[in-house]
Amino acid sequence: RRSIPKILWLKNNKPDLFSKAYKIIHPDTFIYMKLCGECVTDPTNGIMGILNKNTLKWDNDLAETFDLPIDLWPELHTPGEIIGELSSSAANALGLKQNIPVILGGGDQQCSALGLGVINRGQAKVTTGTGTFVDYVVDEPVEPAGDFPIFSYPSVIKGKWNIEGITPGTGTVLKWFAENFSQIQIKESHEKNINVYDILSKEAENIPPGSEGLLFIPLYMFRKGTIYGLGWNHTRGHMIRAIMESAALAAQMYLKLVEGMGGAKVTELRVDGGAMNSDLWAQIFADVTSKKILVPEIKDGAAMGAAILGFLGCKTYDSFEKAIENMVRFPTVKNPIKENSKIYKKLSRMFMPALLELYEK
Amino acid sequence: RRSIPKILWLKNNKPDLFSKAYKIIHPDTFIYMKLCGECVTDPTNGIMGILNKNTLKWDNDLAETFDLPIDLWPELHTPGEIIGELSSSAANALGLKQNIPVILGGGDQQCSALGLGVINRGQAKVTTGTGTFVDYVVDEPVEPAGDFPIFSYPSVIKGKWNIEGITPGTGTVLKWFAENFSQIQIKESHEKNINVYDILSKEAENIPPGSEGLLFIPLYMFRKGTIYGLGWNHTRGHMIRAIMESAALAAQMYLKLVEGMGGAKVTELRVDGGAMNSDLWAQIFADVTSKKILVPEIKDGAAMGAAILGFLGCKTYDSFEKAIENMVRFPTVKNPIKENSKIYKKLSRMFMPALLELYEK
Repeated sequence: RRSIPKILWLKNNKPDLFSKAYKIIHPDTFIYMKLCGECVTDPTNGIMGILNKNTLKWDNDLAETFDLPIDLWPELHTPGEIIGELSSSAANALGLKQNIPVILGGGDQQCSALGLGVINRGQAKVTTGTGTFVDYVVDEPVEPAGDFPIFSYPSVIKGKWNIEGITPGTGTVLKWFAENFSQIQIKESHEKNINVYDILSKEAENIPPGSEGLLFIPLYMFRKGTIYGLGWNHTRGHMIRAIMESAALAAQMYLKLVEGMGGAKVTELRVDGGAMNSDLWAQIFADVTSKKILVPEIKDGAAMGAAILGFLGCKTYDSFEKAIENMVRFPTVKNPIKENSKIYKKLSRMFMPALLELYEK
Repeated sequence: RRSIPKILWLKNNKPDLFSKAYKIIHPDTFIYMKLCGECVTDPTNGIMGILNKNTLKWDNDLAETFDLPIDLWPELHTPGEIIGELSSSAANALGLKQNIPVILGGGDQQCSALGLGVINRGQAKVTTGTGTFVDYVVDEPVEPAGDFPIFSYPSVIKGKWNIEGITPGTGTVLKWFAENFSQIQIKESHEKNINVYDILSKEAENIPPGSEGLLFIPLYMFRKGTIYGLGWNHTRGHMIRAIMESAALAAQMYLKLVEGMGGAKVTELRVDGGAMNSDLWAQIFADVTSKKILVPEIKDGAAMGAAILGFLGCKTYDSFEKAIENMVRFPTVKNPIKENSKIYKKLSRMFMPALLELYEK
């Protein structure tokens, strides 16, 4: 429902424009229309609009309250459904065959959860790309007490829900650090044709857990990023490690919260996203969360989840479980190192209040 | 009197060593002994020991209380006095003539005040080198209420006192930043034979006052350095400017405090130290303090002050005033830019509580 205020702004401030509108769509629908001409969406995206949480259909009351009639919204279908066939123009543009089936996908984090095999109550995954996204599976929507930035989204699987906690910008901080403070490393990465993040990760490897007192609060996108505890002893490596740790600390904070809301502890944590290209970062996640970490072969879980929906739509597999069993592999497992977890337990007691305080400001 | 606890530690923990001691001396006395064999010091250094603040002689009560007898301390003389002649061995080692007079100097910040012509009540100077040192002249010692890191030190001029506020590490933060995050700039400075700080200063020039919300609290030497308000828009230049601003904000904080303690407003501010090699940094001081800033020809005011004491000892000049008139020049004057001062006024209201809170922790 988070897009309703934006739509109402448009309605109130550009009434001429709004009155000409044929449909209210999100980017997913725009792409479906381009692919096969169908104006459709699914509940994982529809939840941003006037979706009813019980029926997963458009909500009559919300439509009336906000004067956003139901016929302005696209048709709702279920992720994994065939919605049409690739048009000739789309096939030409994409270099694909005509008439291949177009299958309905889902929201990014919901697809990522599926792509990591996180589909049952009490399972959880963490994605660290631009930001850090914690998703925990429950059987019905749960609303947080207070103003926590935690949201209940429908899962791609009917009847399941993901409670999601978001810390924006955790990964982008490292990009920012690379771009602003690592010119020599960027040059080296071009010369030797290696990823600059591999160089940064190497720099952080010899820094002890907790970065010797350096603590990052990664709310840079709100211009509230904070670095605490800087001392002369802190080097580039400390900064990089503290940035990595901040993503894991943010995840740990939400894990604690969603475990409490969901009522069951997470026994093992599945993780994906660009951050997991760093072995060190994966280990930090294990140490900070004190949980066994499963790192997938395909670190872009959202793409994997979409692929699974595709194969289900084509009937290659007849259940989510079978698709996951055949398609999802976790070649890397990181176990928490006890000594490190002890240090991070202390650190997380400082991180959570500091982050929440900045969120609220 | 700040060295008394250290001396007592030695006395209690290394009694054999202490019982063999001939004198308790600070480094200044060690150097006088090397130069001319005299075991002397002056009140500006003696204040670290058992000096009586009224008489500027060693204090009998303190000597008794701490069992540090007065004959263990060097002879006290007045800055600017001839204390001996350069020994032949010292003359050889230094490549100087024998028998030239050795003149008693004074503490670094006290000499710097003299070297900037800051000798009368209500005058103030700020030195930014490794740290930022605010000195304000009064006619008698003033003790701060509470635990502020503000100290009363005798001036090199008998009967005058300096109240001094210290923020350690303000300048060293920029060195730390250069060494850790400016490898390309360091390389460039070597290749083009320019000072790396000139390059850094240039980077900060185009950043608006207030560094677009980036705020540094420069207590790095206590591992309490804090960076607030980081956003994606912040670049290297913002960091550099915010570091520069932090020194000026620290100075402004102490200026407010010592003006209050001293009872008179500072009308113009004299500034020295390595930071003043940056034109931008000097302007920032003017803008942050809202005061006219005088930048001297000789930015090492402490050396200039020592030179003045030398000339007075040699009777080249017969008063402090005449020596200052002939030796101290301020070719650069920076006037505050009103628009900028307005921004910094807001910023200083955030800086002071944040700094004091960290000091206390």
